[in-house]
Amino acid sequence: MTAPGPFKLKIQLYCGDEIAMGPGKADLLDAIGAHGSISGAARAMDMSYRRAWLLVDAMNRCWREPLVETSPGSAHGGGARVTPFGTAVLAHYRALQARLDSASHCPDHAALEAAMLPAPRVTQKG
Amino acid sequence: MTAPGPFKLKIQLYCGDEIAMGPGKADLLDAIGAHGSISGAARAMDMSYRRAWLLVDAMNRCWREPLVETSPGSAHGGGARVTPFGTAVLAHYRALQARLDSASHCPDHAALEAAMLPAPRVTQKG
Repeated sequence: MTAPGPFKLKIQLYCGDEIAMGPGKADLLDAIGAHGSISGAARAMDMSYRRAWLLVDAMNRCWREPLVETSPGSAHGGGARVTPFGTAVLAHYRALQARLDSASHCPDHAALEAAMLPAPRVTQKG
Repeated sequence: MTAPGPFKLKIQLYCGDEIAMGPGKADLLDAIGAHGSISGAARAMDMSYRRAWLLVDAMNRCWREPLVETSPGSAHGGGARVTPFGTAVLAHYRALQARLDSASHCPDHAALEAAMLPAPRVTQKG
């Protein structure tokens, strides 16, 4: 985890009222790919198993095919993998993110950075 | 307020750990401009006066010059206006937002929309 830079871009894709894909869900897919299970991914992301499971469930309900497949096992036990469909969705999301990150280098962005202080002042009197 | 579309882009500018500008603060500046006071803007945005005041305070501490100027008055009373500096910051932020919105129309975005369901499925069995 790096400290937040001055500029943060958050791309959220909604399916009805659910967030089908966003920064947290994309990172969770990466972690499931790296760790081979929802519980391992949750641990690596310092997230509860329950929360990781709910995010996976939401993703699997929002897309035409599941993004994550689990194999049955003991409680919290079985493995999980990102499906080829999930890998494709993640790649498109990362590509969109990279495209917008690079589009954000522009004179308006430079003007905003120049106008901002390096750190906030202390609270003024009310 | 419109329902969230499938795609939502959130640009946040950080000053240290504070959000110096983001969608909510930009909308608040617009509302202060329209209503001429923090309390009027808060009412229009269905936000508490305290929350609006805290957002204004954060903005005024993060930039080289204040974005909002208040004129003294009765409690919650005095008027407020967006300074010329604040108007410029807001214009750069809106321009950056428009630039990224238009950059988001691309094949990756189209592929994501095609892969998403129009509405989420019901929760699957655990």
